Amino acid sequence: VAKRLEKFKTTIFTQMSMLAIKHGAINLGQGFPNFDGPDFVKDAAIQAIKDGKNQYARGYGVPDFNNAIAARFKKDTGLVIDPEKEVTVTSGCTEAIAATMLGLINPGDEVILFAPFYDSYEATLSMAGAKIKCISLRPPDFAVPIDELKSSISKNTRAILINTPHNPTGKMFTHKELDMIASLCIENDVLVFTDEVYDKLAFEMDHISMASLPGMYERTVTMNSLGKTFSLTGWKIGWAIAPPHLTWGVRQAHSFLTFATSTPMQWAAAVALRAPDSYYVELKRDYMAKKAILVEGLEDVGFKVFPSSGTYFVVVDHTPFGLENDIVFCEYLIKEVGVVAIPTSVFYLNPEEGKNLVRFTFCKDEETLRSAVERMKEKL
Amino acid sequence: VAKRLEKFKTTIFTQMSMLAIKHGAINLGQGFPNFDGPDFVKDAAIQAIKDGKNQYARGYGVPDFNNAIAARFKKDTGLVIDPEKEVTVTSGCTEAIAATMLGLINPGDEVILFAPFYDSYEATLSMAGAKIKCISLRPPDFAVPIDELKSSISKNTRAILINTPHNPTGKMFTHKELDMIASLCIENDVLVFTDEVYDKLAFEMDHISMASLPGMYERTVTMNSLGKTFSLTGWKIGWAIAPPHLTWGVRQAHSFLTFATSTPMQWAAAVALRAPDSYYVELKRDYMAKKAILVEGLEDVGFKVFPSSGTYFVVVDHTPFGLENDIVFCEYLIKEVGVVAIPTSVFYLNPEEGKNLVRFTFCKDEETLRSAVERMKEKL
Ligand SMILES: CSCCC(=O)C(=O)O
Ligand SMILES: CSCCC(=O)C(=O)O
Repeated sequence: VAKRLEKFKTTIFTQMSMLAIKHGAINLGQGFPNFDGPDFVKDAAIQAIKDGKNQYARGYGVPDFNNAIAARFKKDTGLVIDPEKEVTVTSGCTEAIAATMLGLINPGDEVILFAPFYDSYEATLSMAGAKIKCISLRPPDFAVPIDELKSSISKNTRAILINTPHNPTGKMFTHKELDMIASLCIENDVLVFTDEVYDKLAFEMDHISMASLPGMYERTVTMNSLGKTFSLTGWKIGWAIAPPHLTWGVRQAHSFLTFATSTPMQWAAAVALRAPDSYYVELKRDYMAKKAILVEGLEDVGFKVFPSSGTYFVVVDHTPFGLENDIVFCEYLIKEVGVVAIPTSVFYLNPEEGKNLVRFTFCKDEETLRSAVERMKEKL
Repeated sequence: VAKRLEKFKTTIFTQMSMLAIKHGAINLGQGFPNFDGPDFVKDAAIQAIKDGKNQYARGYGVPDFNNAIAARFKKDTGLVIDPEKEVTVTSGCTEAIAATMLGLINPGDEVILFAPFYDSYEATLSMAGAKIKCISLRPPDFAVPIDELKSSISKNTRAILINTPHNPTGKMFTHKELDMIASLCIENDVLVFTDEVYDKLAFEMDHISMASLPGMYERTVTMNSLGKTFSLTGWKIGWAIAPPHLTWGVRQAHSFLTFATSTPMQWAAAVALRAPDSYYVELKRDYMAKKAILVEGLEDVGFKVFPSSGTYFVVVDHTPFGLENDIVFCEYLIKEVGVVAIPTSVFYLNPEEGKNLVRFTFCKDEETLRSAVERMKEKL
C-alpha cells in the first residue's frame, strides 16, 4: 500500500456493518436507512433505464440534473449559479470530497479540520499531501473554539473544512459561528469546503449554508448528495457547487477519478430534487419521531445523550457502564447486547479524545429502534 | 487548480462529444454505443431497484457481484481467486485505475506507460506523484519495442501499465510480447497494471490476460468493466482483481475515493457477467460487421487504415487529405464534413508523435456508420 494510505484501516463503517451481519446484531452503526427511498424517485430511475439513458453522461453531469441542483441551491440559499460552470456531479459526496482535495490542495498546504470528523477527510487530505491542523469540538455542545481556530490559521492555510449538520455529533454550526469562520476566511484568504449532506435533516434549528454568507460564495465548495435526503444511500449520487475557478479544479480531479456518474441515476436524481416541499416536511416529521424514540430510549437505558440538532445521529457518553473505552464498549454492545454503534475515537486524530463517546443512528424504522432500546435496557 | 492537474485539459472525449452535439455531427469519437444494452441486464437493474436494493453496498462490492467477477475470471484465465479478498468493485474502470495508482504508487516511483495511452493513466499517475517513463508503440503494427522497454527499467520502476486490447489503436499484445514483459517484470520485481476493458471485443486474435502468465498473477492488477461488453457505458461499474496484498492498497484508495459503487447496478452487473457464451458470440459477430463497414468505408474514402485486432476503435493516417495535424484535421472533419473523430496527439506525452493519426469508433449502428462514410466520401 502507498505511504499516503498506510495509517488508514478498513473504514469503521464497513467493519461495523460486517460485524452486525456476523453477530445478527441490530445495526445502529453505519448511516443507511433500513427502509426504502420514495417510489417517485425509484420509478424515475426505472424509466430512465427503460428509455435507454444508459450511455456515458457528460463528465460534469446530465444537463437536467445540473439544472435541478442549481435550482435547489437557489431555493435553499437565494444564490443564482450557472449549472454549466459551477456544478459538478460526482459519485457520491465521498467523491466530491476526494475531487475537491485532489483538485484544489497542493502538497504542504494547510487545511483545518474540526474533530470529530468523517474519516475520508483525513484520508483524502493525505492523498493530496496536505498538512492537517485539527481543532476539537468538545462536548457537551461541540461549540467552535474560535480563539483556537484563529491561532491555527497561518499564511499556509488554504482551506477550512466544515460539516454541518455534523457527523457524528449532530451539531449544527450556528449563524454566529459561521460568521466568525467567514470573517477569518475572508481576512486570511482561506477557502471553505463544506459537507452539507445532512442539510435536510435539520431538526432543532435552520440549516445555514456557508456559501450564503456575504463574500463567501466565491471561496466556498459546497458538497451535498442524494443519499441521505432520499433514503437511497446506495445510489452514490453527489455534487459539488463552487465558483468557476474552483469548479475547474474539482472537475479536473473528477474527470480522472471516475470520469462521469451513473446516467440513469442522475435522471432520477433530477426528479428527486424537484420534490415538492411536502416531501421534506414529511421526511423531517418521520425523523423527529424516530429521534424521539432513540433519544428517550438511550436516556432510559442510562446513557448521557448529547443534544443533536441535525443529521440522523446522536452521540452518547457510555462511561456510566464502566467499560474501558469506546472500542471495548462497542464490542461488548455487539457481542453481549446485540446492537451496533460506532466508536468515535476513529473520528479524531488523537483517538483518546473520543474514548468516552459512541454514535447511534436513528435512520431505522421505529420497530427496529424500539427493539434496540429494549435489548440495551435488558442487557446493559 | 492543484499543481498535479495543472497541465491537463478538459478530456478530449468530453470536448469532442460536446462539439458533436453543437455541430450536429455524427459522433464516431467517444466510445459509447448509440444502441442500448441488453434487456436482461436492464431488467435486472429494474428488479434490484424495485426489490429495495438501494442502500450502501459493501465497500468492496455486493457479494453476489464479487462472486460473479471471480467466476468469470476463472472462466477466462483458469485462475481461482477469492472473491472476498481479491476483487474490488469500483465506479467504472476509471476509478479502478485511480485507486490502483493512489493505492499502490508512491511519489518518485517510476511507472512505464506505452503511448498512445488513455488520458487518465497520466493524470492519475500525476496525482500519485509517479515519475512516468513513456515508450511509444509505432505504426503500422504498434509492436512493443522490447529493447527500449528493457533499457527503461531501473531500480525505481514500480509498475508497467498495459492496455490490451489497446485504446486507441486496437492493437492486441501478442503472447510473445506479454511473455517478454512478464520476464522483465519478474526479473526486476515490477508490477503490471492491466486495463482489459475491451477483452470481449477481440476480433483478430484471442485476448490474453497478463495475470494468466506463469508467475504473473501475484504481481498483477487486472482492471475491467461492464460498460463496453454490455453496451452500458453510463452505468459506471468496474473492478480490479489482484492478490490480497495489492488488493489492500486498491481498496484503501477506493474507500476514500468513492467508498462504494451503486448497489442496484451491481446486482444487475452480476446477472450480466453470468450471460451465456452465446451473448459474447453475438456481440462479436455484430461488431465484426460494424468494423467491416467502417474499415472498408475509411479505405474507400482514402485513409490509410491501420490494422486493429480488438476494441471498437480503428486508427487511420489522415495525411492524404493534406491538413496540418490531427487537431486541425478533426476540426475540419467536424465543421466541414459533419463527422467527429478523436485526434490522437492527446494520447502521447509528446503530441508531435500523434499528429498524423486520428481514431474512429465503430460502436454505432450500421446506418450511422454508413452515413458517416457517405459524408466523408462526399466532402473530404
Ligand atoms: C460510508 S458511510 C457514510 C457516512 C455514514 O453514513 C456514516 O457516517 O455512517
Ligand atoms: C471516458 S471515455 C472512456 C474511453 C472511451 O470510451 C474512449 O476512449 O472514447
